Amino acid sequence: MPDNPAPGADTPSVTHNAMANAIRALAMDAVQQADSGHPGMPMGMADVATVLFTKFLKFDPLAPRWPDRDRFVLSAGHGSMLLYALLYLTGYPDMTLDEIKRFRQIGSKTAGHPEYGHASGIETTTGPLGQGLGNAVGMALAERVLAARFGAGMVDHYTYAIVGDGCLMEGVGQEATTLAGHLGLGRLIVLFDDNGISIDGPTSLSTSEDHLMRFAAANWHVSRVNGHDPAEVEAAIKHARAVTDRPSLIACRTTIGFGAPTKAGTAATHGSPLGKDEVAGARAKLGWPYPAFEVPAPILDAWRAVGRPGAARRADWEKQVAALPEADRLEWNRRQSRALPESLAPAIDAFKTKVATEKPAWATRKASQEALEVINPLLPETVGGSADLTGSNNTKTATMAPIKHGSYDGRYVYYGIREHAMAAAMNGIALHGGVIPYGGTFLVFTDYCRPSIRLSALMQQRVIYVMTHDSIGLGEDGPTHQPVEQLAALRAIPNLLVFRPADAIETAECWELALRTTEHPSVIALTRQNVPTVRGAGQENRSAKGAYILAGAAADKVRLIATGSEVHLAMAAREALAKDGIAAAVVSMPSWELFERQPATYRAEVLGAPGTARVACEAASGFGWERWLGTDGTFIGMSGFGGSGKYQDLYKLFGITSDAIAAAARTMVTRMA
Amino acid sequence: MPDNPAPGADTPSVTHNAMANAIRALAMDAVQQADSGHPGMPMGMADVATVLFTKFLKFDPLAPRWPDRDRFVLSAGHGSMLLYALLYLTGYPDMTLDEIKRFRQIGSKTAGHPEYGHASGIETTTGPLGQGLGNAVGMALAERVLAARFGAGMVDHYTYAIVGDGCLMEGVGQEATTLAGHLGLGRLIVLFDDNGISIDGPTSLSTSEDHLMRFAAANWHVSRVNGHDPAEVEAAIKHARAVTDRPSLIACRTTIGFGAPTKAGTAATHGSPLGKDEVAGARAKLGWPYPAFEVPAPILDAWRAVGRPGAARRADWEKQVAALPEADRLEWNRRQSRALPESLAPAIDAFKTKVATEKPAWATRKASQEALEVINPLLPETVGGSADLTGSNNTKTATMAPIKHGSYDGRYVYYGIREHAMAAAMNGIALHGGVIPYGGTFLVFTDYCRPSIRLSALMQQRVIYVMTHDSIGLGEDGPTHQPVEQLAALRAIPNLLVFRPADAIETAECWELALRTTEHPSVIALTRQNVPTVRGAGQENRSAKGAYILAGAAADKVRLIATGSEVHLAMAAREALAKDGIAAAVVSMPSWELFERQPATYRAEVLGAPGTARVACEAASGFGWERWLGTDGTFIGMSGFGGSGKYQDLYKLFGITSDAIAAAARTMVTRMA
Repeated sequence: MPDNPAPGADTPSVTHNAMANAIRALAMDAVQQADSGHPGMPMGMADVATVLFTKFLKFDPLAPRWPDRDRFVLSAGHGSMLLYALLYLTGYPDMTLDEIKRFRQIGSKTAGHPEYGHASGIETTTGPLGQGLGNAVGMALAERVLAARFGAGMVDHYTYAIVGDGCLMEGVGQEATTLAGHLGLGRLIVLFDDNGISIDGPTSLSTSEDHLMRFAAANWHVSRVNGHDPAEVEAAIKHARAVTDRPSLIACRTTIGFGAPTKAGTAATHGSPLGKDEVAGARAKLGWPYPAFEVPAPILDAWRAVGRPGAARRADWEKQVAALPEADRLEWNRRQSRALPESLAPAIDAFKTKVATEKPAWATRKASQEALEVINPLLPETVGGSADLTGSNNTKTATMAPIKHGSYDGRYVYYGIREHAMAAAMNGIALHGGVIPYGGTFLVFTDYCRPSIRLSALMQQRVIYVMTHDSIGLGEDGPTHQPVEQLAALRAIPNLLVFRPADAIETAECWELALRTTEHPSVIALTRQNVPTVRGAGQENRSAKGAYILAGAAADKVRLIATGSEVHLAMAAREALAKDGIAAAVVSMPSWELFERQPATYRAEVLGAPGTARVACEAASGFGWERWLGTDGTFIGMSGFGGSGKYQDLYKLFGITSDAIAAAARTMVTRMA
Repeated sequence: MPDNPAPGADTPSVTHNAMANAIRALAMDAVQQADSGHPGMPMGMADVATVLFTKFLKFDPLAPRWPDRDRFVLSAGHGSMLLYALLYLTGYPDMTLDEIKRFRQIGSKTAGHPEYGHASGIETTTGPLGQGLGNAVGMALAERVLAARFGAGMVDHYTYAIVGDGCLMEGVGQEATTLAGHLGLGRLIVLFDDNGISIDGPTSLSTSEDHLMRFAAANWHVSRVNGHDPAEVEAAIKHARAVTDRPSLIACRTTIGFGAPTKAGTAATHGSPLGKDEVAGARAKLGWPYPAFEVPAPILDAWRAVGRPGAARRADWEKQVAALPEADRLEWNRRQSRALPESLAPAIDAFKTKVATEKPAWATRKASQEALEVINPLLPETVGGSADLTGSNNTKTATMAPIKHGSYDGRYVYYGIREHAMAAAMNGIALHGGVIPYGGTFLVFTDYCRPSIRLSALMQQRVIYVMTHDSIGLGEDGPTHQPVEQLAALRAIPNLLVFRPADAIETAECWELALRTTEHPSVIALTRQNVPTVRGAGQENRSAKGAYILAGAAADKVRLIATGSEVHLAMAAREALAKDGIAAAVVSMPSWELFERQPATYRAEVLGAPGTARVACEAASGFGWERWLGTDGTFIGMSGFGGSGKYQDLYKLFGITSDAIAAAARTMVTRMA
């Protein structure tokens, strides 16, 4: 039986059709007024969405962040007016009619695609196709993990997603599908807007896939309905909710642009305004005689009534929170606030002290694992994983059990060879809240998940990417596996913190920074090969400033700037230069972004006054390094792709050595003298 | 009936097992000697590969570029020793035993993963999973397109690919699968190394998919065999060849590391040497008593005999070439040599003259279409396409018919919403030869296909990416669709040419450069919004130098450097500055990479002497622009993500205006005075 009383929908005077038509009218009117947008999808899916919201969705418009609300993800983000109309109709206070009228205008809450943070009720930023489906998988996973930890009463919601053909054709969507099926996420219900149309025309132009068969092959429960028959849709959702051991796909046969007299069912309704005449014709055809943007009071009332029962359900839920054992309640609240336990700082300090004493020659990926062995027991909210490189990424710590189909009390996800879905799911996990996701692959394969990394950054989510094998230092696997341009490409993404720690101490510091940065995702680039410990004792998190003088003095006339595995080369070069009487300071620069945020005076001190001879070394492309070197500096690094061989040989082959650094510094000093 | 006589395999004294064991032994020995590599896959797939090469594959080791050879793609590139062993055994002259012994060492032809161009017989660079499958789809498509054009006698080969679980789990592999099924590529036969093992352990850790069902859902012919039963494998390949209307997947159940006494069937054989004892044990278990790297003469002879019949088949084929009508033969040879017809240059010139006269205010995407309307009729070898944005990317010209299932005489591919598979397939098309692929999506979605763009660059293939909607200038779709960091990220990729033309004339020039550059892929970034024609008449391809002074004089003390849609803003700023008595030269910079290749004197002339006030403007991230601006220049562009609104409003909001350019120049001039 449907959960929601939805009084409006049962009132004979306000029919399902009238409620759905309110969505259609708002969508076509807003697109028409903006002279830009996608009316076809909201008009086609209005019936399905009306059934979902009136009969099933658990939400409280007045408490849009209620942790146990059902999540509704509009993966087909171009249909944004569907979401905005629903938020307005059900009474989210910040989604006013004025905002609807300002659709797609600067500063409105109603951007072309739903933008997380612009209006409440927008659960995630969608538009790049398939991403929302990946997010929904992450949300559904987070729900299961939290339910396993805090109890089924506390955490007991569904995740619904509306997807289009594009979401299902995109690789990320397909990866997300097989991941969700494998994990048996029974509370994930995907409504497929099966309208047979994409931008280029009928989907038969570009695909011949049997979607239901494919989802069934991926361990999904599948069904097909007429998406314009509310009873069929209701029955299918009801049935899908009853299937608890598998996610459900409901293929809803719909007519894109439903109601448009001449354009319905065609690509012409997808991404352009219908046009004045067609809008008028749709009004006539739908039996919607009201002026643009006007929803008659009884219909609006019926919609508002849909949103109202959520408050009582939420109040019931608040009682559950209050009834939690105190330790659980404190942990729950701490997790929700995204605060970290106070035990973390001293534990990291102790780790750093130990490392400074023992000076291990660990690969930084190994250092990362050692840091995680400290972090994970203190932070029960972390959920780690890897895209089938667990032993290489060193992401699984000793006590982490895997999360499996039907058993969600673990904290580790074997994401499989699905970098893109891993990243998209991590966005969903972070958006869900209560869990901090981190996941690993090789740094070069950030390319495989870059669209999701971009969305982590755009949405400013605390997602931590553990990217190992971060240079030619990975050796024999060769150029396809050796990142060269990836650091530059990641540093170019706004809002993203890119860390490349030099040793175990910096690695621990970078982890702490990544965890404490609630408003940004982080990439931690880590070596495969061993590197010496270059830092000494001291509790200050020096990486927090992005770059600092590791050795030498601010007055030194030479700066050797390096990151990660090249810092120790700079240290060796410094020693060689000292023998020649050249005083050089070594700058370790684990994060460009954090360094950029420092005051100009600090930056000038670290980089040296004008006239300082600067040599930078990073086993990667020099693209962008002019920012720190100026036009006179020398960059020691890669100028093309890597090669296959022992890493020591590769460093020599490509001239990335302490000798080369020292020689470059000598040349510059001579030139300047 | 199998095509190949394969005398070796039928000689009772040299059994299939002996031949397959030669592969296994070479693989485990080479990995052991390198102390690095992946023995499991070659040992597991040795039987399947032996059947394929001895019974079916059409190839001539002495003419590895024979256009009508069957293509063999090792998509699971980590199993590179399988390929190297086969090339050595069948007698490719450059794959010597010495090369096998130098596996994974610098300068060898036997890199960790197969690298295109390192040794003949390596059809494509593989390793990043799923890419080879996408390449194979492109090759199989090119084969069909060329057969439709030149006749089934001239072009009559198969494309075989070996894929692993990773290839099938990756999104790109799944996109490629559905694309191939849709296009009905019956000569594509995929051999799935179904060993149930990935790096993290049994694939049951991370997937629950029914692969055969999924492929069947994507319109593939599917079968399953015991991959260690040569008769079963042979029958399955034979049957797959007989299915001509659909691609075929043959799931070969294999044991990874087959023959390893204690490690076979486990992830331990995947990515590490077996170890001395295990290698010795495998020798005993396989009945291979010979020393490391030694293949007894009868077995080597049997293998060499497999390669020999190809010469006669190739000679027969050469007769077909000779028998072609002269015009066809000339075109065939021209295409194979990658030369362009002589008619192209004057046609482009005529186009430029016309545009210089008419001065249209076209979006550069529209200019691109107009240029293609000139190019495509003269270059029958182009095959265009788009990832479901045909009307937006303007990639389909008037006379281009679509390529469809069973009908391959068209020249346009509706790739569907599969950017990644599109790019991977284009790599395969280019590698196949005889066809020049171009394909479009939005510039921001280069992120979706970046791993394949990287491989275009690494393999130095002439693949042309038509990337429209190249800035906030796309307007209302908002930040998810507005590229900001993509230009920087693409410019950071070695070997890739990134073009951003300013108007229709530069667009035509960039197209000509992209087509004439046989050794590099190109990205052409194009606007959605209209821009004025800024260039005047003149036949020189000024874009060829990457940057040039569009207006003003080399002696001018101000440089306004811009690309694409911001060049006309720089021109307007120049006029404003002139009114203030400030002489500014405008530099149009359509390609950083080409500019970098110019002599230092030319670059200095364009950028101005030290002390020149430089302002750069690009509606994108300034990441990397210090290269041209030095530390004193000013960049006008984006510092974060975009927004949703009318593009004119967005340009104002983000301060990318001619006023801002002029103001920055004035400030710099004042400071310097």
